[in-house]
Parts: sequence; C-alpha cells; structure tokens
Amino acid sequence: MSIKIGILGYGNLGRGVECAVKHNPDMELVAVFTRRNPEDVKILTETAKVCHVDQAVSMKDEIDVLILCGGSATDLPVQTPEFAQHFNVVDSFDTHARIPEHFAAVDAAAKKGNHTAMISVGWDPGMFSLNRLYANAILPGGKDYTFWGKGVSQGHSDAVRRIEGVLDARQYTIPVESALEAVRNGENPELSTRQKHTREVFVVAEDGADKAKIEHEIKTMPNYFDEYDTTVHFITAEEMAASHAGLPHGGFVIRTGSTGWEDEHQHVVEYSLKLDSNPEFTSSVIVAYARAAYRMSLEGQTGCKTVFDVAPAYLSLQTPEELRAHML
Amino acid sequence: MSIKIGILGYGNLGRGVECAVKHNPDMELVAVFTRRNPEDVKILTETAKVCHVDQAVSMKDEIDVLILCGGSATDLPVQTPEFAQHFNVVDSFDTHARIPEHFAAVDAAAKKGNHTAMISVGWDPGMFSLNRLYANAILPGGKDYTFWGKGVSQGHSDAVRRIEGVLDARQYTIPVESALEAVRNGENPELSTRQKHTREVFVVAEDGADKAKIEHEIKTMPNYFDEYDTTVHFITAEEMAASHAGLPHGGFVIRTGSTGWEDEHQHVVEYSLKLDSNPEFTSSVIVAYARAAYRMSLEGQTGCKTVFDVAPAYLSLQTPEELRAHML
Repeated sequence: MSIKIGILGYGNLGRGVECAVKHNPDMELVAVFTRRNPEDVKILTETAKVCHVDQAVSMKDEIDVLILCGGSATDLPVQTPEFAQHFNVVDSFDTHARIPEHFAAVDAAAKKGNHTAMISVGWDPGMFSLNRLYANAILPGGKDYTFWGKGVSQGHSDAVRRIEGVLDARQYTIPVESALEAVRNGENPELSTRQKHTREVFVVAEDGADKAKIEHEIKTMPNYFDEYDTTVHFITAEEMAASHAGLPHGGFVIRTGSTGWEDEHQHVVEYSLKLDSNPEFTSSVIVAYARAAYRMSLEGQTGCKTVFDVAPAYLSLQTPEELRAHML
Repeated sequence: MSIKIGILGYGNLGRGVECAVKHNPDMELVAVFTRRNPEDVKILTETAKVCHVDQAVSMKDEIDVLILCGGSATDLPVQTPEFAQHFNVVDSFDTHARIPEHFAAVDAAAKKGNHTAMISVGWDPGMFSLNRLYANAILPGGKDYTFWGKGVSQGHSDAVRRIEGVLDARQYTIPVESALEAVRNGENPELSTRQKHTREVFVVAEDGADKAKIEHEIKTMPNYFDEYDTTVHFITAEEMAASHAGLPHGGFVIRTGSTGWEDEHQHVVEYSLKLDSNPEFTSSVIVAYARAAYRMSLEGQTGCKTVFDVAPAYLSLQTPEELRAHML
C-alpha cells in the first residue's frame, strides 16, 4: 500500500516534489492543491487530481502526507500551522532566524490535530544542518565553515531585477577557492564575508539603459552586494535563455577539529553538494522526510519535528534488516 | 550531573575514548577495565580507576555507559552480548558481513537486561553508513561509491609483517584520483577494485633478507594485494619510526543520482573525512553515541541500535531548542 501524497502549491518546488514522488515506488501523488483556477494548472502525473486549495481539508482522509510548497516569507508561517491540524505535513521553511517561532506554532497545531509535522526540510536548512550537528557532536573542539555555490540565488536575482533599466538578471554565488582550500588544509582561517564568496551577475538591460549606473547600483546594494566582490556582465535575452535557464546550486559544510589528550591530531569532515537543480534536490529531500513523517505518525510520534529529530532509518525504502545487512 | 563512562580494553581505541571523554564536558571517565594486571596499565585520567575486567559487573551501578574497545574478530562477538545484559554499551564492531548476527545476539541480551546497546559505531561502519543511507533515501535513482584513504590499513600491515624476513611494515590504501574525479563529474563509471585504490607498502626487512622475494610475496598475496597495483618500499627502522608512526586515514562516500520527470538533472552528494588519527576519530564518534545511548536508555528505548536508529539530536551537547535556534 503506497503512501498517499498531496502537494500544496505548484511552482518549482511543487513540480520537484511531483518528480520525486515518481522516483519513489512506495509513494503515490493523489492531488495538487492550488490557489489558482485548477483548470489552468497542468500537472505531469496523469493519475493525480488538481484541486483548489479550499478543497484540501475535505480530502484529508485520502492523503497521508501533505507537502507544503509555498514560500517562507508569507505562505508557510500561515499554511503550515493551519494544515498541520488536519494532515501530516512537511515544509521547507528556510528563514533561519524565525525557525523557533515557526516550530512553536506548528508544534501546537500538530499536537492539537494529532499529526506529525516536519519543518525546514531541504538542504540548508536540512542536510547541511544535519552535517553541522553530526560533526559538532563528534568534534566538540572545532570550527564550522559553510560555503554556498556555485549556484543561483533567487533572492539576489530578484533584487537586481528591481533595478530600473533591468529586464532580467541571474545572480551566481561562488565560493572562493583559496578560502575553501585553507579550511580543508586545517588552517582554521578567520574569514570575512568578502573572503568566503564572490557574486557574479548576468543582466539583460533595456535598450538605451545606463549600464554604468546599473552596475554601480548592483555593486553598492546594501546587504545583498555591498560586502562582496561582485562582477557584472551585460548579456542579451537570447544568451540568458540559452545559458542561464537552470537553477544549479550546492555548497560545502566543513568542520575542522582536534582530538588527543593535548589536541595533537587534526581532522577535517566535509560534506558537499553539487546540484543541477536546487528545487528538485530540495524536493527529493522533502519526499524522503515525508516517508519518515508518515511512519512516525503511525507510531504516534506526533508534533513538530525537524531533521534533527528523525532517526535516519525512517527515511529509507529499505527495512531495518536490509539496511543493517547492506548499508551499514 | 555528568554521564559516567567505563572503558573496556585499553589499546589505541580505549585511549582514544579516554581523550574524547576529556573533550566532552558532560562526561566523566569512571574506570578502565583490562584483562591485564591493572597495576601494569597506566592511564591518563587521574580521577579514574583501572580495574580488572572481572570487577566490571560489580561496578555496574557506578557506570552509565560501558564502551567496549576490543577487536571485532574475537572480542566483541562475546563481550558485547555479555555486557549488554548489565550495562548500556557501545561498540565499534566492523565486520560488515557479520553485523546481522551480532545485532541479534546483542539485541536479545540488551532487552533481557533492559539496556541500550549501540553496535558498529565509528566511521565505516558509522558515519559513512549514515551518509550512504541519507543519500540513497534522497536520490533513489543513483549510484554509490566509497573510497578509502589515504590511510593506514592495520589488517594489511599485519599481513605483510607475517612474511618471512619482514621486521615491520606499514600499508597505505590510496584512492585513485582519476577515478574520484570521474565519479565527481557524474560520469557514473564502473570501477574495478584495481581502478579504485592503489596500495603502498613500507617494509623494514631483516639484514640479508631476500627483498625481491618479499616484494613478490606482498604483490601476489591473495585477497590482500593481488587485485591491486602495489608499490613496495624498503626503509630503515629509523625511517619507519620517524615517518610512519601515525595512523592517519579517511575516505569518500559519493552518491550520484538524477531527478526530474525524465531524469534530466544530475546531482553529486559527497562526504569525506581526512583524519590524522583513525582510532581517535572513531573514538570521538563512539563517545557521541554513548551520549545518545544514555539518553535513549533513560527514555526506555532499549535493545540493540545502530547509527540508523538514532535521531541526530541525541548526539549533541546542545538542547533541542539550542539546536533549532543555532544549528538548523
């Protein structure tokens, strides 16, 4: 009997979840819920329905886990507590600073509804967080480094698009290779923001736009660019479509630390991701945690959970016996 | 109140556990148990006792977790079930093929004694296993690669030492860089044993020994060397002591896989370790899991567990609230 999945919100992430469900033979997509007119939303899975979000709660008995694919700024703070009362849910809430309050709201709702709710699932927060935790627990005397990229930052791309004269923009975050090497070599460098990452921006400008002014506005934009070394390239709309259509991303979590009676031995633990598609990889993590949410709910482990609370075996298609025999 | 630790067996691993306990402020080493004459065993921790192993069970109320530091060939298959009846225990049983039977024996004993027993904790099995599981759950359509090294294989070093005319030997396992790069590039290569690793052996030979014969015996030794490209160097005892006294190790777990409706996007997940001291890093993992064993036993989660069964939060010194606020 397969795990019945619902998707709420059908953007890049929702489509990624749909694809990930297809890759997991123990799962089945039942319905996609949308705020748009359902007739205007075309999905890939022939056996699944498209419904308006207002219908979701009435279908709660048909769905084992509802995956919330909205944004962290305004959608999830409302949706996750709302739907955790009626469904087991998974979200990818990624506003790190607001996780404690989001957790509290979702925990209360999930407990009220006797459901299991997983928040902040993806790769950062998510797999990167897990790797920080494991490496910190193993090497309590150590130092953490997280590098992101090379990859597209949608927030930074959006910020550039808001500049006057900009038709389209794509921003890549790039880790500084020499900083990465210094960390890997166990040099424990103190790195400023500028020393860790550079930013590269591709811009399609309006005809006759003042390119020098656009470049200046980008490079001096507070919070987004002013603390970084930024390179700006002006390209055509055709080049943007041909070479910058994807959403690649990735990064590195590294912890260096010492062991021994006098800290005489050094160790480097590194986790890295190289992703062709940020939303599809995030979705793939989410779907594995949907399996865990379903299993934990069957065991009565209700309330809000994060990746820190999930024993790894819950994520796997394999049985505990198979895992011990073949993967340990 | 600190977690009271006992160590059974005081070799490289036992000493590593002693050092790791020192690095964890919530733990305290109570006693080291040995099969030798306790008066002959000098430990580093002034506040801990050295006792004969026969005294261990009589001290069971003074110890929260007993860490078993014996070997997998003959010690742990007997010791872990025996002591799991009386203590929460952690071992580093690493004979992959025999894990299912070891698990069954330890599970029965731990349940009988109402204790929590963690087996096969370290980095492989251990952290490498975890990374295989996570990456498999996220990318079900993919391919796994594990590379070991550069590092000292004690089993291979011992095998060379048994050759006539060899006084001392040190064997390094080295991953083949071009194979690693092909995997990282997502080429999904099919790699033979020979294509993944090379072996390098440093030998101190007896005066007048037939070096050509020793080299031939090493390179053709079944299971240990015959399937590999092996380089043999003859060195002096002084050079062995000066340059090959450490026990470095490490390795790489890589999974490549695809996502998307038609598998159109590729991803690479990589976990790597670069360790100055194999036994001290293994010990550091063990001590983190001793914390988890203690906490899980307090919650009544008894029986045999592996790293797959432990929610990551149990490993950390930080509270769940601190973890969510700062590490997620």
